[in-house]
Amino acid sequence: MNGLEEDIYSLLLALSLALVIGKLLEDLAIRVNLPPVIGDLLGGLILGASFLAIYPVTSTIETLAWFGVILLLFYAGMETRYRTFMRNLGIYGMITIGEALAAFTVGYLIGTLFGYPPLSSFFIGAVLEATSVSVSIKTLIDIGKLATPEGYAILGVAVLDDLAALITIIVGKSLISKGIVDPILVVEILVTSIAFWFLLVITLHKASNVILLKAMKLRVSEGAVAIVLGIFAFLAYATKYVELSPLIAAYAAGLALSEARGVGRIAERIRPLALILSTLYFTSITASLDIKAVVRSEFIVFYLLFILGAVTGKVLGAGLTSYLIGFPKISALRIATGLLPRAEFCIIAAYVGYTAGLFGGEVYLAAILVVFTTNIFTPVIIKTLFTRGPEIDYVRLRIRRGLSV
Amino acid sequence: MNGLEEDIYSLLLALSLALVIGKLLEDLAIRVNLPPVIGDLLGGLILGASFLAIYPVTSTIETLAWFGVILLLFYAGMETRYRTFMRNLGIYGMITIGEALAAFTVGYLIGTLFGYPPLSSFFIGAVLEATSVSVSIKTLIDIGKLATPEGYAILGVAVLDDLAALITIIVGKSLISKGIVDPILVVEILVTSIAFWFLLVITLHKASNVILLKAMKLRVSEGAVAIVLGIFAFLAYATKYVELSPLIAAYAAGLALSEARGVGRIAERIRPLALILSTLYFTSITASLDIKAVVRSEFIVFYLLFILGAVTGKVLGAGLTSYLIGFPKISALRIATGLLPRAEFCIIAAYVGYTAGLFGGEVYLAAILVVFTTNIFTPVIIKTLFTRGPEIDYVRLRIRRGLSV
Repeated sequence: MNGLEEDIYSLLLALSLALVIGKLLEDLAIRVNLPPVIGDLLGGLILGASFLAIYPVTSTIETLAWFGVILLLFYAGMETRYRTFMRNLGIYGMITIGEALAAFTVGYLIGTLFGYPPLSSFFIGAVLEATSVSVSIKTLIDIGKLATPEGYAILGVAVLDDLAALITIIVGKSLISKGIVDPILVVEILVTSIAFWFLLVITLHKASNVILLKAMKLRVSEGAVAIVLGIFAFLAYATKYVELSPLIAAYAAGLALSEARGVGRIAERIRPLALILSTLYFTSITASLDIKAVVRSEFIVFYLLFILGAVTGKVLGAGLTSYLIGFPKISALRIATGLLPRAEFCIIAAYVGYTAGLFGGEVYLAAILVVFTTNIFTPVIIKTLFTRGPEIDYVRLRIRRGLSV
Repeated sequence: MNGLEEDIYSLLLALSLALVIGKLLEDLAIRVNLPPVIGDLLGGLILGASFLAIYPVTSTIETLAWFGVILLLFYAGMETRYRTFMRNLGIYGMITIGEALAAFTVGYLIGTLFGYPPLSSFFIGAVLEATSVSVSIKTLIDIGKLATPEGYAILGVAVLDDLAALITIIVGKSLISKGIVDPILVVEILVTSIAFWFLLVITLHKASNVILLKAMKLRVSEGAVAIVLGIFAFLAYATKYVELSPLIAAYAAGLALSEARGVGRIAERIRPLALILSTLYFTSITASLDIKAVVRSEFIVFYLLFILGAVTGKVLGAGLTSYLIGFPKISALRIATGLLPRAEFCIIAAYVGYTAGLFGGEVYLAAILVVFTTNIFTPVIIKTLFTRGPEIDYVRLRIRRGLSV
């Protein structure tokens, strides 16, 4: 009983701090022309371990915050258009191959440059490969630019990049335990994940009108919202049994429902929940980090090069590929910027390498710094690039390369 | 990382089961003319420990479910009218004294009847005293009868009964540890709790228009909803430092904001969140209970008398007092029924007595059975009494006893 009481008080405190301080700082961010999510991140930094240390991060709060960002991706899925997304999957695939390879290579080269052996460098490559676009998506929702060719590309590449990152880590683990790559395992994971994803999206999309029609006929209050949330939660849960992040399944569920009749009204009801819980997420990630402990002078060059590598890998890989397949320069840059943020996967890769003794704490700390800097600066660059440059010409884009929007 | 993953999957599973199965059973309940909350309770019973055992109840889910019911009381507060409630507080006070004394006495007598010593009987009285009206409030919201004189009375008495239950438990603890009642402690707790409650309600009520006006001027999306939720969470958190349940503070916060300009639109945005999370609560409470383990034949008479006592104490105490101060018979019965449900406080009292060695597991199990039966049957009786009988005559009521609505 007492543990439960402590837990509820911590949750209430975290929520009140994240919501009041977070939203006031979001407002301030908007006034000085920054994206609102900066307010949440800054709030966490001030209230958390780095400075005031009054913001609690219990496991319940972490779980709920993570649920919040899963819900945010579900909401983003509902705001995408199914047909446009599916038609352009090939294009997203090409960009993913480009950006994943480039980012991994840059990481591998940095590792080699600092004298790490090949397997260690492999994991440094994995650390820099994995994108986590939550902060980009929140920013795009806030500035109303999610439903743009670049916004869709960022979402599409994020889905596929998640798979790429997973494969990289699996291959790395296989290299650690057996010294060789198990190709059967890799193919198995690739096939099951992709099959699961498509099965989920296509089946749910076909059933979406029927489900929503039935759900809206329920006589209970908030029935349709509850059923839709229940289905989303179940599909995200089902990823427990395949090698896929719940984030990706959540996005898929939203995407599959995005063209059903009446989904707009339901998305409108889910929006406050998604935005409130994701505020908890963005506040918690910076709150749990003690920036004072991470910044250590002896590794400053390594850190700087690591951050630089995190940026150049994605900008070169995603930017160049996007440009080559037909996006104008400004669009290619927008897409690349959206892919800069790293989060969970980056930390996981660093953690796996660290616990396997492939490198010391310096890579783990560097990964934390990359997470921190990419999440803090990306929203600002996204806002600048998406609001100042020209809107890209949908028609011209379609004519040139068959890209449809 | 792994613990967090397990935790998120459990949460997703619980949410999907509670929302989909819960809402379908809610719909079924409505079709057979039962209150919807029965669907949630039944869903938990089927999915939980008693039968299928597929519904997880982790500490994160318990915390979130409890947060859901705190939020439900906040929402109920926003749906009340401040002035009406405050004007009638004296009346609610009289009903509370009647129902608390009667329920306690019935419990004490049952204890004595079964041969328990006085201190043990005192705790059996405490077990039967404490009301937890969440299920009544959910039912009243669902059938649209919260804003009635009886609905307000149930809410008002619930607030004061919480205080009465607290005092009973404190006195009991004092009797266990010192053998005597510490009157200074009792007065201290009474004064600080009541002072905190009034300070909270009156201050926030005075500031409510200004706060909402400022919150609605924020340029961030869902800003006003977030600020209002943040304030609610903070006030519920603040009860950590006074002897008051966060439920009561949540209700007070809602009540204080209930007449501010623009609060209706905010309440409308909070409603899905409150109803969805409280579904998680109602499903979880029956899911965590293994009804097979509780029903043991050797105590069957004791159990039955215990349940009977739980009902008669409240019906006699609250019903009679309400009738005597001017409510018509049907209203008095409605109020009494709304006060039947027991939950946390009842279990806490039983747990304290049990761990102090005042009685064996039989009282603890009886308390669980009381929680179970009162929560299952009350919604049905409430629905019958509130929808079949006449609406009470507001004007006549005011003229007769100064009661205003």
